[in-house]
Amino acid sequence: MKPFINDDFMLDSSAARELYHGNAEHLPIIDYHCHLNPQEIAQDKRFSDISELWLSGDHYKWRALRANGIEEKYVTGDAPAWDKFEKWAETVPYTMRNPLYHWTHIELMRAFGIDKLLSPATAREIFEECNAKLAEPEFSAKGLIRKFNVETICTTDDPADDLCWHKQIAEEPFGTKVLPTWRPDKSIMIEKPAAFKEYVAKLGEAADMDIHSYADLMDALRKRHHYFESLGCKLSDHGLDTFHAADYTDAEIESIFAKVLAGKAPDSEELEKFRSAGLHDLAVMDAESGWAQQFHMGVIRNNRSSLMRSFGPDAGTDSILDLQCAEAGNRFFDKLDSEGKLAKTILYCLNPKDVETVITMAYNFNDGSIPGKMQYGSGWWFLDQEDGMRKQMNALSVLGLLPRFVGMLTDSRSFVSYTRHEYFRRILCSVVGMDVEKGKLPASEMEFIGKMIQDISYYNAKNYFNF
Amino acid sequence: MKPFINDDFMLDSSAARELYHGNAEHLPIIDYHCHLNPQEIAQDKRFSDISELWLSGDHYKWRALRANGIEEKYVTGDAPAWDKFEKWAETVPYTMRNPLYHWTHIELMRAFGIDKLLSPATAREIFEECNAKLAEPEFSAKGLIRKFNVETICTTDDPADDLCWHKQIAEEPFGTKVLPTWRPDKSIMIEKPAAFKEYVAKLGEAADMDIHSYADLMDALRKRHHYFESLGCKLSDHGLDTFHAADYTDAEIESIFAKVLAGKAPDSEELEKFRSAGLHDLAVMDAESGWAQQFHMGVIRNNRSSLMRSFGPDAGTDSILDLQCAEAGNRFFDKLDSEGKLAKTILYCLNPKDVETVITMAYNFNDGSIPGKMQYGSGWWFLDQEDGMRKQMNALSVLGLLPRFVGMLTDSRSFVSYTRHEYFRRILCSVVGMDVEKGKLPASEMEFIGKMIQDISYYNAKNYFNF
Amino acid sequence: MKPFINDDFMLDSSAARELYHGNAEHLPIIDYHCHLNPQEIAQDKRFSDISELWLSGDHYKWRALRANGIEEKYVTGDAPAWDKFEKWAETVPYTMRNPLYHWTHIELMRAFGIDKLLSPATAREIFEECNAKLAEPEFSAKGLIRKFNVETICTTDDPADDLCWHKQIAEEPFGTKVLPTWRPDKSIMIEKPAAFKEYVAKLGEAADMDIHSYADLMDALRKRHHYFESLGCKLSDHGLDTFHAADYTDAEIESIFAKVLAGKAPDSEELEKFRSAGLHDLAVMDAESGWAQQFHMGVIRNNRSSLMRSFGPDAGTDSILDLQCAEAGNRFFDKLDSEGKLAKTILYCLNPKDVETVITMAYNFNDGSIPGKMQYGSGWWFLDQEDGMRKQMNALSVLGLLPRFVGMLTDSRSFVSYTRHEYFRRILCSVVGMDVEKGKLPASEMEFIGKMIQDISYYNAKNYFNF
Repeated sequence: MKPFINDDFMLDSSAARELYHGNAEHLPIIDYHCHLNPQEIAQDKRFSDISELWLSGDHYKWRALRANGIEEKYVTGDAPAWDKFEKWAETVPYTMRNPLYHWTHIELMRAFGIDKLLSPATAREIFEECNAKLAEPEFSAKGLIRKFNVETICTTDDPADDLCWHKQIAEEPFGTKVLPTWRPDKSIMIEKPAAFKEYVAKLGEAADMDIHSYADLMDALRKRHHYFESLGCKLSDHGLDTFHAADYTDAEIESIFAKVLAGKAPDSEELEKFRSAGLHDLAVMDAESGWAQQFHMGVIRNNRSSLMRSFGPDAGTDSILDLQCAEAGNRFFDKLDSEGKLAKTILYCLNPKDVETVITMAYNFNDGSIPGKMQYGSGWWFLDQEDGMRKQMNALSVLGLLPRFVGMLTDSRSFVSYTRHEYFRRILCSVVGMDVEKGKLPASEMEFIGKMIQDISYYNAKNYFNF
Repeated sequence: MKPFINDDFMLDSSAARELYHGNAEHLPIIDYHCHLNPQEIAQDKRFSDISELWLSGDHYKWRALRANGIEEKYVTGDAPAWDKFEKWAETVPYTMRNPLYHWTHIELMRAFGIDKLLSPATAREIFEECNAKLAEPEFSAKGLIRKFNVETICTTDDPADDLCWHKQIAEEPFGTKVLPTWRPDKSIMIEKPAAFKEYVAKLGEAADMDIHSYADLMDALRKRHHYFESLGCKLSDHGLDTFHAADYTDAEIESIFAKVLAGKAPDSEELEKFRSAGLHDLAVMDAESGWAQQFHMGVIRNNRSSLMRSFGPDAGTDSILDLQCAEAGNRFFDKLDSEGKLAKTILYCLNPKDVETVITMAYNFNDGSIPGKMQYGSGWWFLDQEDGMRKQMNALSVLGLLPRFVGMLTDSRSFVSYTRHEYFRRILCSVVGMDVEKGKLPASEMEFIGKMIQDISYYNAKNYFNF
Repeated sequence: MKPFINDDFMLDSSAARELYHGNAEHLPIIDYHCHLNPQEIAQDKRFSDISELWLSGDHYKWRALRANGIEEKYVTGDAPAWDKFEKWAETVPYTMRNPLYHWTHIELMRAFGIDKLLSPATAREIFEECNAKLAEPEFSAKGLIRKFNVETICTTDDPADDLCWHKQIAEEPFGTKVLPTWRPDKSIMIEKPAAFKEYVAKLGEAADMDIHSYADLMDALRKRHHYFESLGCKLSDHGLDTFHAADYTDAEIESIFAKVLAGKAPDSEELEKFRSAGLHDLAVMDAESGWAQQFHMGVIRNNRSSLMRSFGPDAGTDSILDLQCAEAGNRFFDKLDSEGKLAKTILYCLNPKDVETVITMAYNFNDGSIPGKMQYGSGWWFLDQEDGMRKQMNALSVLGLLPRFVGMLTDSRSFVSYTRHEYFRRILCSVVGMDVEKGKLPASEMEFIGKMIQDISYYNAKNYFNF
């Protein structure tokens, strides 16, 4: 039996070990999609204790705690830091085979240099050791980013955001680029007229103009798009249930806009038309700015309304949605392609049943303009774990070009999630190395294969996004 | 090459062997969901021959026979016992890689002590050896249950059933608890008004009351629910196409009930509303009694109408259904959760495309009240085989907490299917053991891991159901 | 590490090697479904160069080229043969882990005896060596067919086709049977009335009758069906989005037919009824002739309309469709079964989410008339690769009878794709051999298992289709 997390963790062939240690291990990280709070970076946040760092915002852990029979008080409630940590330590052994078990111990090891297993027996000791380290300056937000050799970070930001923290970060360089990402979901979310109206007002203020029509809305968004661009933004991101590509006329869209701003909820056909128009017009902006657009699809959110009421969104009650996507998705991309307005695109899909559908759809629209224009992104959210990553790599391999893959992102709110890049690279080397081991890839090509590992770990993202 | 079914069958690592032989092998069986006939247990049924035991009710074998080109006469027809067995023996080699091949030989070995492979060459010999054994007293229904060390059995029963056989079994204890399970499907199945009317009458009789309204129907069901509870029932079970959670008013439901009882078929909207109300109100009863509720979803039944006409249901012509479930399923559980009426729940899903959707949905509703409140059940029906079990264990691991899993059930009509618990435990130990072998789980934690194997094999079910 | 493509390529156990070399390797090929051009066979086509052979019609390679950033000029455009080949050689290393990487090198080895890896460094040398060989007579269409020991080829043909090339091939025998396959998709494709009207006229001419009604249409098709039968046709093939089994009356169908012939497009309900009638009536013809019918389902075609306009269909912009199929599919087969008109059937499904749904559906309708009547076909199109084949073999194994499987087909337009039969046989032996190696199949049964490999590689198809 092999020892647990060690230098050769996950590296189950000699080729895998050669690929990882020779190519992937020491490359910097480009984390092109995450949910870090730019204010915390700008202000170089210090963490009071490991509970704040680990347990204050991590809905993966919250789900595990609840499933392990832990009361909400210790989950999102007001229990003291130690009490929460104790419950988490009690739960950790029950996360065996869940990514949390590996994440927890890799983070302890890489961020804190602790190689003990977290359990009730070690909880107090680990709590104190972590807290002592968090009191040291190199465990600040920027300190942790530096520790993990992160070259570029892309946060996730609303078009109405003034990006003041990004400006402050840029003015006080610390070796890592921190760029905004354009996430305009709210600007076309008309289901709740009151919230939409409020958002439109806020956006108008940010764009310094009045918004009286859909055309105004798009003008305001275009102004903000240019503003984001001026601060180095290179990506957009869209959260979707599924694609929308209904037919519509400008007049219809204006009339739906007017209706919603007048406080009336749209019917389902109007909703479909409005989303189709909005998504399309936003995608055109991305193409015109030369950005990459990301689509995250297939989530159903805030399903436990008791927690939504008492806590709010992102409480750990989101799950996988099971809609169709091939017809609308192909229509959506085809329209953009026909107009010459299809930006570089990365698709992420939460429902594993759709992986093959989505990859083959994306690959319909590669047009030879740049290598790997249409991407299928790394295992996302519930699929961001060993099994999900292997499936993503294997599906992308057999249906597309793995060597052109832009690789890993954390999608995380935490400053210690960079370890997931290590996890990804180990799994990538395991997958590819095993093929060499079994004679499915030629051992004579280890130089090219090593370069491919480097590309997927770092260079493809660097070249694709052009930061 | 390894020998076929032996002590280390399926145990493909030293950790797997240690886990199985040291923890799983000798634990009793809790078979918390099956379709055994309680009358056969009460009367301690004797089997005239192996054809009766194996071939008289097993639609898995029937499907294999038909696919192997065997006429219906030897399948569900009136061919003599030996002729049917001969055809089955001829078919067995053609079931290689199908679970039937393993099941057949494990059952021969564990129930009859026969380690020969069944084929035309051995058919006569095995037929006679089995029949001779079946003539011995320890091969009666109770004898077989004893042989397999079964602690608890939960059958599947209609609310209108008087449970007389359960009472008789309880009065003549033989070392194994045999409890009823509440399966109220017919009580909300209004598609065929005549059959529904007949059922309502029967249920009214059982509950000793007249049923003139939906409110009456629920009262009658509640009376029967208490009756089942009084006989030790701890589980309900529901067969669903998919979840139903439409909005409705009490008045609408009463009016649909009246319409159907007047002999008119409901339209599709009425059907959806009625199912939504019925499923919800039945789920409330389970919560109020502290039971666990089971939902089996995703089957389309009796698809070959020629066999339905000549033979009836359960002829081996049921298959996997492919509907959506995330939106209605989440609404269904959210309503119960909001009302404080969400019982312990086990979901089973026949369509493997939905596994991840269903697990993440279930885990939205863990509320910390007990460990593993929301369960995703073991591979069911077509998925009750090595590949399906591995996928269930792996998906549950990466999306939930494997150590809290309540484990295996046979879902079978046969007294020799208990071998499937052995099969499950071997696969479980193989899955977990391989992670230890590869360093993905820490070898230092073999004690906890061994306990986890014991829990999933036996203790989790014991604690969860509280028999 | 093992050497790349060698005698034991893919054969990862001693049992696999024994099974392959002892049973599969030297059997002839029955390629019961492909898209070879019968004219090219009849005229014994010679290839001017390797670009014509490899790059002039292969949409798999086109997709890879575009994804690798290669301009359309070198894909479907008018760049010279060498320039196109150079771009392909540049792309090949980027296809590692995609089936194209294995296909390319197996084809180089088996067709041309070249064991170099294709890359920019070897491009010129390989180009010249291939072209020199293509100038030799044994590299003609018939020469290549002979080289690969192909016993039977079934092409794909329209009912209106006069099959003149098939007649010519039959008159000049060269050791391989080349038979037509009935593909009547256009005869029920009424979405575009003008194209349908034109097709009906063409079909009427071929059948030597006027077509004024749906009944006439079916009469004409029946005449052509008999004509195909007279030339040795034993299979039909249908390209479907999904199954259609709506209720309809003859009068409704006649009225839809009249409407469409009058130039009016059908609405969606009419389309559904017409497809249901047409598919059913065509299936009856197959049953009456004792043919096997094939259904290929789950494709969405020609998604990039810019390429559709400039190039036409089959440009490499088709992808996976995600519709439901269980309800309509079961109704479709049940109606045929009830009428005693269900032909031998092979189902192929492009969306891997549907594999289990479709296999269990098919197996509902095995009626014991012949072994393996209802088949689930080998991995198709995007699924025709190692991972897809393994999944097909495993799903078929656990849900059906693998030993009754009719095995591999190329579905290809290329005369060097026969290597895919070798690829399939190696993977089959790997899958089955590993089970022997691990003790999941009894090593004592290697004779039966070897026969099973022979059957799936060759004899099952021979017996099933009865060429």
